Amino acid sequence: MSQAASAPAPGLERLSLNTATTKRWTLAEAVAGCTAAGIAGIGLWRDRVAEAGLDGAARLVREAGLTVTSLCRGGFFTGPDAADAAEDNRRAVDEAAALGTDTLILVCGGLPTGSKDLPAARRSVADGIAALAPYAEAHGVRLAIEPLHPMFCADRAVVSTLGQAIDLADEAGHGTGVVVDTYHVWWDPEVERQIARAGAAGMIHAFQVCDWLLPLPADVLLGRGHVGDGAIDIPRLARLVAEAGYQGWTEVEIFNQEVWDTPGEKTLRTLTERHRAYLAAAEKDPSPWR
Amino acid sequence: MSQAASAPAPGLERLSLNTATTKRWTLAEAVAGCTAAGIAGIGLWRDRVAEAGLDGAARLVREAGLTVTSLCRGGFFTGPDAADAAEDNRRAVDEAAALGTDTLILVCGGLPTGSKDLPAARRSVADGIAALAPYAEAHGVRLAIEPLHPMFCADRAVVSTLGQAIDLADEAGHGTGVVVDTYHVWWDPEVERQIARAGAAGMIHAFQVCDWLLPLPADVLLGRGHVGDGAIDIPRLARLVAEAGYQGWTEVEIFNQEVWDTPGEKTLRTLTERHRAYLAAAEKDPSPWR
Repeated sequence: MSQAASAPAPGLERLSLNTATTKRWTLAEAVAGCTAAGIAGIGLWRDRVAEAGLDGAARLVREAGLTVTSLCRGGFFTGPDAADAAEDNRRAVDEAAALGTDTLILVCGGLPTGSKDLPAARRSVADGIAALAPYAEAHGVRLAIEPLHPMFCADRAVVSTLGQAIDLADEAGHGTGVVVDTYHVWWDPEVERQIARAGAAGMIHAFQVCDWLLPLPADVLLGRGHVGDGAIDIPRLARLVAEAGYQGWTEVEIFNQEVWDTPGEKTLRTLTERHRAYLAAAEKDPSPWR
Repeated sequence: MSQAASAPAPGLERLSLNTATTKRWTLAEAVAGCTAAGIAGIGLWRDRVAEAGLDGAARLVREAGLTVTSLCRGGFFTGPDAADAAEDNRRAVDEAAALGTDTLILVCGGLPTGSKDLPAARRSVADGIAALAPYAEAHGVRLAIEPLHPMFCADRAVVSTLGQAIDLADEAGHGTGVVVDTYHVWWDPEVERQIARAGAAGMIHAFQVCDWLLPLPADVLLGRGHVGDGAIDIPRLARLVAEAGYQGWTEVEIFNQEVWDTPGEKTLRTLTERHRAYLAAAEKDPSPWR
């Protein structure tokens, strides 16, 4: 029942498990798994929190001494009912505060059903974030806008590049920032410049990692892999965020049926091995990478 | 045996069939199909040309009075043997000249097998294009760099945005330009600005259209649809290229198993209907769109 921070294992000081990676685990199982594996951070999805109940979830992670590195997710500003979305987003802010995390990740929504008006959808997103930002700030929560890979533009997020996300965060103010997720940004010819820009503005609120696997599966949502298994030079991106001044957590978020079908303990062994192999050095040594 | 230009049907003055759309047709069948449908332009793939033989292919389209709007494709600069690629690309330039088209489309290649060094792959592409451009110019052929959707970055093209393609074309000089393909660029928050930039530089060498269908199929190559069937506001993009000064062809290139399984005549009926419904107005009236 310690309230002290759980001691991370050597080399894992900044590793956080996003619960989407161990989809079949309950929150209690994920918390126990992290403790056993020497992982001190956990990123929570709202569905897992809801299952455990908000108070119960907050108690679980607190008593285990874990840091809640982020809550996923608010957003979806482009649906038919903006008022509904706004209310749900304020609830997400409340939940983040209750769970003791300062970071709420926003997945902003795709084109509204039946619409092809991308500029209008993007304006809805800007309006939605701007309306939410003061509420979040008042509750001690930073909004983190997540640009999603452009292949999700139609159905999940019309925020498609890091540069666009930074522009939106700039416009919203009130401590709003961005998520750098290797899967979503690795292809971008601007990534080096935009990571530096976000870092200089103190806007990198979260760093998430997973790899790009080929071939892409149908519907492409589940094509993510363990760090090192795909096409992305993840150490390079980790060094870029470190050079940009980011000193926060490295959250592993993998959507992949095969990973989900693997026992959680085994998945966490892979996570910790890969973290030591690919990320620990970049986190410790933010010297220029070439 | 007329050598005069084939008379296009009203409203189809700028419509071109890319032969990838009617994959099961031989070149002779595609040429006959275009003539019957009142389509005056044809974009050729090198495999169809090779089947017919270069001289035979050139004669076929010339005798039908069709304009060859582009040849697909050169490129693939990132493979293990740069000399091989360079030789094949010079051959593609020769073929374009022999076929009477002034436009060779370049699909630049993904990450080399086993490599995660995206900046190096992008440098290989820049070097490859710069080496090819004077040869193309000397043969009366304009290179057209095609940015591919970022979901193809790992395996097909490390050129991922229109802005990046324009930068590469700038660097290569010798008349090098870009392809604007709705499927590849529609998501880009910069698309309006970059189309204007390409137009101002006289760099829009080809405009290709097809639509974004959901859900994406496995491997995502074949997720393209007829104009109007998906998420893209294609008339908007057509107006943007028209406003940018583009007065060339609108080439329809659809990779889709269902379309390929449809009789070619029926596919061409759909093409011409959709062209009149979605594109003819934008082509004729380049007045500002809002």
